[in-house]
Amino acid sequence: MSDILATVSTTATEAPAASGRARRGGGRGADRTRKAPAATYLNIRNTLARTEILTPEALEDIHNASLQVLEEIGVDVMLPEARDIMKAAGAMVTPGSERVRFDRGLIMEYMAHAPGEFTLHARNPLRNVRMGGNNLVFAQIASAPFVADREGGRRAGNQTDFRKLLKLMQSYDVVHVNGGYPVEPIDIHASVRHLECLSDIVTLTDKPFHAYSLGKQRNIDALEIARIARGITAEQMDSEPSLFTIINSNSPLRLDIPMLQGIIEMASRNQVVVLTPFTLAGAMAPVTVAGALVQQNAEALCGLSFAQMVRKGAPVIYGGFTSNVDMKTGAPAFGTPEYMKAVIAGGQLARRYGVPYRTSNVNAANTLDAQAAYESAMSLWAVTQGGGNFVMHAAGWSEGGLTASFEKFVLDVDLLQMVAEFLKPLDVSEAALGLDAIRDVGPGGHYFGTPHTLERYETAFYSPILSDWRNFETWTEAGRPTTYDHANRIFKEVLDRYEAPPIDPAVAEELAAFVAKRKEEGGVATDF
Amino acid sequence: MSDILATVSTTATEAPAASGRARRGGGRGADRTRKAPAATYLNIRNTLARTEILTPEALEDIHNASLQVLEEIGVDVMLPEARDIMKAAGAMVTPGSERVRFDRGLIMEYMAHAPGEFTLHARNPLRNVRMGGNNLVFAQIASAPFVADREGGRRAGNQTDFRKLLKLMQSYDVVHVNGGYPVEPIDIHASVRHLECLSDIVTLTDKPFHAYSLGKQRNIDALEIARIARGITAEQMDSEPSLFTIINSNSPLRLDIPMLQGIIEMASRNQVVVLTPFTLAGAMAPVTVAGALVQQNAEALCGLSFAQMVRKGAPVIYGGFTSNVDMKTGAPAFGTPEYMKAVIAGGQLARRYGVPYRTSNVNAANTLDAQAAYESAMSLWAVTQGGGNFVMHAAGWSEGGLTASFEKFVLDVDLLQMVAEFLKPLDVSEAALGLDAIRDVGPGGHYFGTPHTLERYETAFYSPILSDWRNFETWTEAGRPTTYDHANRIFKEVLDRYEAPPIDPAVAEELAAFVAKRKEEGGVATDF
Repeated sequence: MSDILATVSTTATEAPAASGRARRGGGRGADRTRKAPAATYLNIRNTLARTEILTPEALEDIHNASLQVLEEIGVDVMLPEARDIMKAAGAMVTPGSERVRFDRGLIMEYMAHAPGEFTLHARNPLRNVRMGGNNLVFAQIASAPFVADREGGRRAGNQTDFRKLLKLMQSYDVVHVNGGYPVEPIDIHASVRHLECLSDIVTLTDKPFHAYSLGKQRNIDALEIARIARGITAEQMDSEPSLFTIINSNSPLRLDIPMLQGIIEMASRNQVVVLTPFTLAGAMAPVTVAGALVQQNAEALCGLSFAQMVRKGAPVIYGGFTSNVDMKTGAPAFGTPEYMKAVIAGGQLARRYGVPYRTSNVNAANTLDAQAAYESAMSLWAVTQGGGNFVMHAAGWSEGGLTASFEKFVLDVDLLQMVAEFLKPLDVSEAALGLDAIRDVGPGGHYFGTPHTLERYETAFYSPILSDWRNFETWTEAGRPTTYDHANRIFKEVLDRYEAPPIDPAVAEELAAFVAKRKEEGGVATDF
Repeated sequence: MSDILATVSTTATEAPAASGRARRGGGRGADRTRKAPAATYLNIRNTLARTEILTPEALEDIHNASLQVLEEIGVDVMLPEARDIMKAAGAMVTPGSERVRFDRGLIMEYMAHAPGEFTLHARNPLRNVRMGGNNLVFAQIASAPFVADREGGRRAGNQTDFRKLLKLMQSYDVVHVNGGYPVEPIDIHASVRHLECLSDIVTLTDKPFHAYSLGKQRNIDALEIARIARGITAEQMDSEPSLFTIINSNSPLRLDIPMLQGIIEMASRNQVVVLTPFTLAGAMAPVTVAGALVQQNAEALCGLSFAQMVRKGAPVIYGGFTSNVDMKTGAPAFGTPEYMKAVIAGGQLARRYGVPYRTSNVNAANTLDAQAAYESAMSLWAVTQGGGNFVMHAAGWSEGGLTASFEKFVLDVDLLQMVAEFLKPLDVSEAALGLDAIRDVGPGGHYFGTPHTLERYETAFYSPILSDWRNFETWTEAGRPTTYDHANRIFKEVLDRYEAPPIDPAVAEELAAFVAKRKEEGGVATDF
């Protein structure tokens, strides 16, 4: 052993071996959530220069190719009312057909009306988020059919887990927005599910939320619930975007009836429309990243300009969700090099049109292993460097979106907080440069006990939720816990500490009355 | 179940659920190494604009503060011969003391002689690497006292594992350089260890390598082994850098005798000196990242300019290894937001002086779990965006450098290949834009069977080594393997397929004779 130590001290000066082993004794490791100060991660700003992978010429080539698609091929628009609006705006509607073609000048004319930045309002003003510009906003996983944790395994979505996930979301400031139903509670009948879910969302959390576009009536109910929750008039809400909807075009080149109704209902009320084509290269889009981007851009421009035809100046967000499939199995792949390129190029396109950019934190892992972490970290790399403004599925997304994982939720929160810390400007004040400390310590000393260190050490560095930095021996004595073990323990601790955000009793009453009334009326007729 | 599917198809259009579940059937998942074409990942070029976190003013503040450190505080230089060289060059040597101070003009005058780019030569010319500029070069883990795989657990370094790690390294093109001894083989006596190890390195691999600076004689032996392996004259080697040494200053502000001897021996022979202060903020450097960077820069400039005092124009590399410690335990932390900032700022400093930049792929995890993956991915994010040229510990680094992990080696290779794929320029040719394919498929179709897809699908996307993209059911039938399981299987498969690189019999003979002679002479006297 002395031989090893001699070895370490002579040859392994570079391995923290030498410096690390001696000191890495105590400490709890991976149990720091209690110490995380509240409200640290609101209003994240990304002032890094955006990474670009498209030359200005290549950007214009994709832009022009997508406009050519809209002019020559066109889009199938399945709602007659939408075709009428498009026709009135000057689009080329083919009589007796759903096909609509758009002159490139028309598209750019309407895109010019889209605001570059706007505020999405929450019932708690502290939770308002600014969309666009340098702002970076995170929303948790949405729309998973399954939910999982270690004890319960993988199971179909249900109201109990739905509520737990909302509480977890509310507990972390870095998750700014309700991306949707973190898991689909299929134990609630579809006719009233939106009423139950939205009522939970506005009571268990105080953050902005997503109204699914699943038919006109559901949009109308969501709009009313947002208005009641904020305790404002319809007029005030008309000038203050208070909820958003995600519109996924039916790639390739088709917009279905509920999606078109959603754009009409939300844009006409000055609420936020996020147009996100789901263009998997090699499946519903060309197998090349560039080709998939052309189609993504054509579909996005079609839906976004339609929102402007409905109401000029309505708040919209450009969504990119281009990834590749595993050509051996057809499985969607996420967090890949191709995904990274698509995310960064998508940011260049969104900035080309001067609108906020929506991306995602994605992975295709079946459990919380190294793959889940590197695919998510690679996604966040591209999202951050590419200038994403609104990041959906930022926490809890597992198994390619099929499963909302409680453990993955905690891992993602840690990753999001690391991104936020990375984006904090570096302190280069004279005190931070530390010349006096360097002078005091001098050659051959150490900084552990210096005033410069003692004044700062408690807040000098990010304290991760999950990273276990105990030395091998201590970690072994503790039973060799993995990140998964820590995440499993911590999500339960956080749920135990959950406190419901305050709500005005009058608002709660009005909300309950509205939901009860709408449920009495049967909610929304379904086909079941 | 039909209820779930209805749910998915209506509300979860965004979850690959809808599109994914149907298709994610077959496929092996995580078993693609055989298909990886050889020599894909040589000569990686990073043409991304460098990310900067220091304003030009902040960069100059750190630059000036570090020069002030060298002028006012100075550095302890423990080798008299080195002090004589510094004195002759114009440094202020304090009589009867080890302390040397440097005028800022003197430092910058000598730094101006350092080349911005150079080639590091291997015995196989295909393995030559270009250092500096846009080049990105990866070296495997070096100097770990321990080695680990699942079956054998964590054990002290030994020659058998040392050789296995060299074979693994040789098997992957993306690992370009031998960073050093991947693990310290303590079962070889220290007096002859360098002879045994270097002889293994130049026979089991054909890539450039590291000569540890552990006393003048070891440098001299390494220089001769590099010359013999390349089959060239001393004169030719004097014009062709053929090996490198890592010099870790003894932070704070001290250079010890073996390190100074290493600089003299290597620089005087026109071989590569990598000066890397190991400045852990809060331990051997100020607790602030900015202060740690000031000290890192002072120590780096001191050692690099000393190499230029020894021989003007000698090839040097600016090394950054600033990270933070866990102030609760003193444990070194890696892959943190502070590490990312230090890596990116270090790149700005290296470019400020026009020399290549050395960084590292680091993590502090005790096993191959999510932490190991996200800390490494975050490191590679900063390394790539910050413009690292030479990345040490790029494959196999585990547990803060204490352990060389066979499984982590495979994970890192996958991450390095993903970085290389991400850096490949996006094809935006007319064929890649795919307008014809979009026209052929039209609204509502799919691209699985189109000629545009069939012509490209086999090579369209990166095929990861480890990512398991099988659907949950198939993955469950397979026993729910994790990334760790796949990596454990694959490193053994790769070792089984290892083939020794060809070597000229005359060279092998001369090498064996030299090593035998030096061992007969007793190698290098040690204190043991």
